[in-house]
Amino acid sequence: MKVAALAGGVGGAKLASGLEAALADGDLSVIVNTADDFELWGLHISPDLDTVMYTLAGIANPETGWGVEGETFDSLGMLGNYGEDTWFLLGDKDIATHVLRTGRLGRGESLTDIMASLSKALGVSSRVLPMSDERVATILDTPDGRLEFQEYFVRRRQRDEVLGVELRGIESSSPTGEVLEALSGAEAIIFCPSNPVVSIGPILEVPGMREAVAAASSAPKVAVSPIVGGKALKGPADRMLSSLGHESSAAGVARMYAGIVDGMLIDRSDEGERDEIESLGMRVLVTDAVMRDDGDRERLAHETLGFAEEISRSSGRVA
Amino acid sequence: MKVAALAGGVGGAKLASGLEAALADGDLSVIVNTADDFELWGLHISPDLDTVMYTLAGIANPETGWGVEGETFDSLGMLGNYGEDTWFLLGDKDIATHVLRTGRLGRGESLTDIMASLSKALGVSSRVLPMSDERVATILDTPDGRLEFQEYFVRRRQRDEVLGVELRGIESSSPTGEVLEALSGAEAIIFCPSNPVVSIGPILEVPGMREAVAAASSAPKVAVSPIVGGKALKGPADRMLSSLGHESSAAGVARMYAGIVDGMLIDRSDEGERDEIESLGMRVLVTDAVMRDDGDRERLAHETLGFAEEISRSSGRVA
Repeated sequence: MKVAALAGGVGGAKLASGLEAALADGDLSVIVNTADDFELWGLHISPDLDTVMYTLAGIANPETGWGVEGETFDSLGMLGNYGEDTWFLLGDKDIATHVLRTGRLGRGESLTDIMASLSKALGVSSRVLPMSDERVATILDTPDGRLEFQEYFVRRRQRDEVLGVELRGIESSSPTGEVLEALSGAEAIIFCPSNPVVSIGPILEVPGMREAVAAASSAPKVAVSPIVGGKALKGPADRMLSSLGHESSAAGVARMYAGIVDGMLIDRSDEGERDEIESLGMRVLVTDAVMRDDGDRERLAHETLGFAEEISRSSGRVA
Repeated sequence: MKVAALAGGVGGAKLASGLEAALADGDLSVIVNTADDFELWGLHISPDLDTVMYTLAGIANPETGWGVEGETFDSLGMLGNYGEDTWFLLGDKDIATHVLRTGRLGRGESLTDIMASLSKALGVSSRVLPMSDERVATILDTPDGRLEFQEYFVRRRQRDEVLGVELRGIESSSPTGEVLEALSGAEAIIFCPSNPVVSIGPILEVPGMREAVAAASSAPKVAVSPIVGGKALKGPADRMLSSLGHESSAAGVARMYAGIVDGMLIDRSDEGERDEIESLGMRVLVTDAVMRDDGDRERLAHETLGFAEEISRSSGRVA
């Protein structure tokens, strides 16, 4: 079963690793947000791509969900000795990824080709696809002014209220050929439990992406709610939804995905929102939506795929 | 006493650190070979500049003379995981230097300004000056074809016979303003015990450099022989001198410096070459020219400076 998954960082990477385990080798394509890519010391850093790649390669730091396991920070210490700000925790192994990526981008290779080569070298059988090869930058409006995404997310630890989101460069970005191919060939499209505003949002905002998702008409589109009991499982999605005028709930996320998603997995604690979500024209599967360990990832992945197949059968789609 | 020292890598850095200890803070300018600079994974690496900087900062690896003490190699291991060749031993601390330098060069800063800022951050009181801000690349002719310098020096461990040396780009390079100022203000100019072909040679070949050294007419020019008992203290200088038609001896080096150097320090084991060197118009000081420890560096530096003062006095120069 060919599956395309839309993902941001840690939460998306977890479900992606479950999907990879559940599917035949090579059947998974993960379309990853790159709107939080940024440059530091001239290095091109792609936090979400790397989190997905490290997770699928089985080398992600299990404590944090991002970064490489057993990481050391000697480079960062030396950068500190040179008087540099060291708020972004750049590990010694991680920096190798950024150095290679930056060098190859400088030689004119596409981010898509680079990630394909790096992922393959790390033994990843799935395709880790940047949403676009064009640069998009998430800029957040806050009471303290406009902040670049990593400034907000890492340096200021998401403490600012987000009043608006600009996706700089999005209008001149486009989905890559690989992304379009993954979507058109998909038998299911999974919206991973990533931040709907700054992870899944930018992917869908790439001009042509929403249409490409919709055009995969035989593929059921299933989302896994990143909000459980009104709270984000990780990160600032809950506060961000509220401050931007959405509702911080599974139903609030469902409303953002209405018209494009066919079904949604929500947590048992949110069962009370089932009717509200169904009234948006979505099917609902109530389950345990929290991934605590590898077993949870695989279980949730199986449930997600099973739910997609069920939607496919009941709607008479040819999947 | 304002001193300008010409230096390559390890041997030059050792004497430079002795000179720094012997002089008042800020009185030493080290003019460093950059013809073995190269690019690896898009990083601009300046081996000689870094060896001098790390040595003067007191953080050089005492075992190797190059690299940073207590270095780890996790980045390099990760580069290896990505399928990259890892023949150049890039340490995790060291890579921070290259990342910063490369990023700043990319933003249009000069190598001179970058090294000034990095050296200062590491507490170096001397000036670590690239011979030029223009790129020069040492290419060696060998029986196996043309090799870039680091390919020859590191990857192939200097096993190839060197039949010719090209300094690519040298004709369009020029000494920096900082180098010219250091030379014109010098009360002594020291040729460190570095390879006369591929370390001191490129510095002198920068158009205008030889003239600038000569123009510092009140400053005695003193060389410390890098050849002791016919052998290089470190590196391939001895074999390189022979294969290029020079003599691998203190006298052989003296002939290369004839006309520009006023005096030379040679090792006791080479005392037999004194007459030959003096016949080239140079003064000779016979001493223990091998630097085994910090004490040796300071002793040799004091002897070098004393010898320069003596030459200055006896020649009636106004130093």
